[in-house]
Amino acid sequence: MTQNDEQQFFLGVDGGGSKCKAIVMSMNNKILGSGISGPANPSNGFELTVSSIVESAGLALKDAGLENVKLSDLVAGVGLAGMNLPSLFTQMSDWQHPFKDMYLSTDLLIACLGAHQGKDGAVIIIGTGSCGFSHVNNQQFIVGGHGFPQGDKGAGAWFGLEAVKHVLLSLDGIIGTSSMNIPLLKCLKVSNSVELIEVTAGKPASFYAQLANIVFTATDNGDEIAMKLVKDGAKYISDVARLLVQRNTMPMSLVGGIAPLLFSWLDADIQEQLSKPLASPEEGAVFFAKQQSTLLSQQC
Amino acid sequence: MTQNDEQQFFLGVDGGGSKCKAIVMSMNNKILGSGISGPANPSNGFELTVSSIVESAGLALKDAGLENVKLSDLVAGVGLAGMNLPSLFTQMSDWQHPFKDMYLSTDLLIACLGAHQGKDGAVIIIGTGSCGFSHVNNQQFIVGGHGFPQGDKGAGAWFGLEAVKHVLLSLDGIIGTSSMNIPLLKCLKVSNSVELIEVTAGKPASFYAQLANIVFTATDNGDEIAMKLVKDGAKYISDVARLLVQRNTMPMSLVGGIAPLLFSWLDADIQEQLSKPLASPEEGAVFFAKQQSTLLSQQC
Repeated sequence: MTQNDEQQFFLGVDGGGSKCKAIVMSMNNKILGSGISGPANPSNGFELTVSSIVESAGLALKDAGLENVKLSDLVAGVGLAGMNLPSLFTQMSDWQHPFKDMYLSTDLLIACLGAHQGKDGAVIIIGTGSCGFSHVNNQQFIVGGHGFPQGDKGAGAWFGLEAVKHVLLSLDGIIGTSSMNIPLLKCLKVSNSVELIEVTAGKPASFYAQLANIVFTATDNGDEIAMKLVKDGAKYISDVARLLVQRNTMPMSLVGGIAPLLFSWLDADIQEQLSKPLASPEEGAVFFAKQQSTLLSQQC
Repeated sequence: MTQNDEQQFFLGVDGGGSKCKAIVMSMNNKILGSGISGPANPSNGFELTVSSIVESAGLALKDAGLENVKLSDLVAGVGLAGMNLPSLFTQMSDWQHPFKDMYLSTDLLIACLGAHQGKDGAVIIIGTGSCGFSHVNNQQFIVGGHGFPQGDKGAGAWFGLEAVKHVLLSLDGIIGTSSMNIPLLKCLKVSNSVELIEVTAGKPASFYAQLANIVFTATDNGDEIAMKLVKDGAKYISDVARLLVQRNTMPMSLVGGIAPLLFSWLDADIQEQLSKPLASPEEGAVFFAKQQSTLLSQQC
């Protein structure tokens, strides 16, 4: 496709602890291309975050075949983990970004706007981290999202860390053997406790999130330790959902990489109240950018 | 006191996640001076570790009044967390240290040699981290010591992290209020959940270890959440002790800052089997240096 000079292109970015996803959208909400790069969680480093955003944006433009469009032509909506923390928000706002305009928001708001196509509602994000969020009458409400390792129960990094903890205890003979032991050691290319300690030392949430699947696979084999972990994580997410329901924040959707794995473990009444997300967080980021730019133009 | 040129002075260093302790000892095992500096856990950074070692050594020499003795006159025994991990041991061994000689060991071995005055036995260290260790007939056996946050249950950082986790859940309304809430917020000079998330983001074990006392104080008030945490931590340490007892590694001592707080919570049979440590880990580091230098001189 060729560039239309009259056409304003939008960029939607969803940055998280494990990856950064970007889409390029037309004025009439058509997705023209997408790109995925590395982690973009400002809590884990500003430089990595902005380089992931720029990389994913470039890939999305390339995927769209928009060779003549520059980053400086794009109006960007960017949703990032940690943007509810004042210090990180300020740091990102001060970024000399390469876009025409950049509207910065939380990963929570863009997921919520995406899930309900710009309308009010709630989401529970279960990716690398976990968080409950609602956006009703311009009021935002957050449950969880405390970060790794002090919170974000029931999410990828939490499952991975719990798996490592239990495998280490098992290798020491403190608890019984789990069917997670061998797959986990194999996945990390280590063969004993000392090597496992060494390879996990000081690792961030994104490292642990890649191990979450091992827990869910072990539940298929009826592994008791893995089932206890998944039930524990699911109970927390059900509790988060219940707090959101109490505030009349429906509709409510589950989003993020762990969502499909955990859904069937949630309390039955919560499962019934969840609706499928209508659009992605990246699309939500574009909705956000459009809303904000309209608001600003009205103010002028 | 003045320097005796015939006299060889020894330095004993015990480096951990929260602080680095050093003593200067005479040839006949008299402690002449001591010094304490910042964290010296190589897992958290090489530069900080070596600077803490050098600083504590300087303070110990000063405390001893040995103005004319240089670091290059000292034979140093240095015990550090993480020295059982090959990559960290190599990094520390390659250090161009300022001492006459340096004998490098784990924090575990020096604590054990100290507790039993150079003789065989076992220790359970409960400081910032936790670990069980025995040294019998030159064979070493380790239980735990998996590091933060993936292990080291029942230790300072684990208690601090669990306290933060539970206070965050409580502030969200997921669990009930604990009497830890107010002291923890006060200690960290924050007043709500968002500020607590911000101040704890990405913090190392030493940060969390400073919060451990809050949990133990709350148990004095009969706080149920705090009591559950302390019982959980104590059960793990009792399990570690039982694995050591099974290997006939007596005598066994409990050492580290959390040890006196946790002792009365351990299983009764374990409490009975514990004996008071005879000397400190820093003294153990000197015993180690003397043993090693004797061994080397015999080989020549």
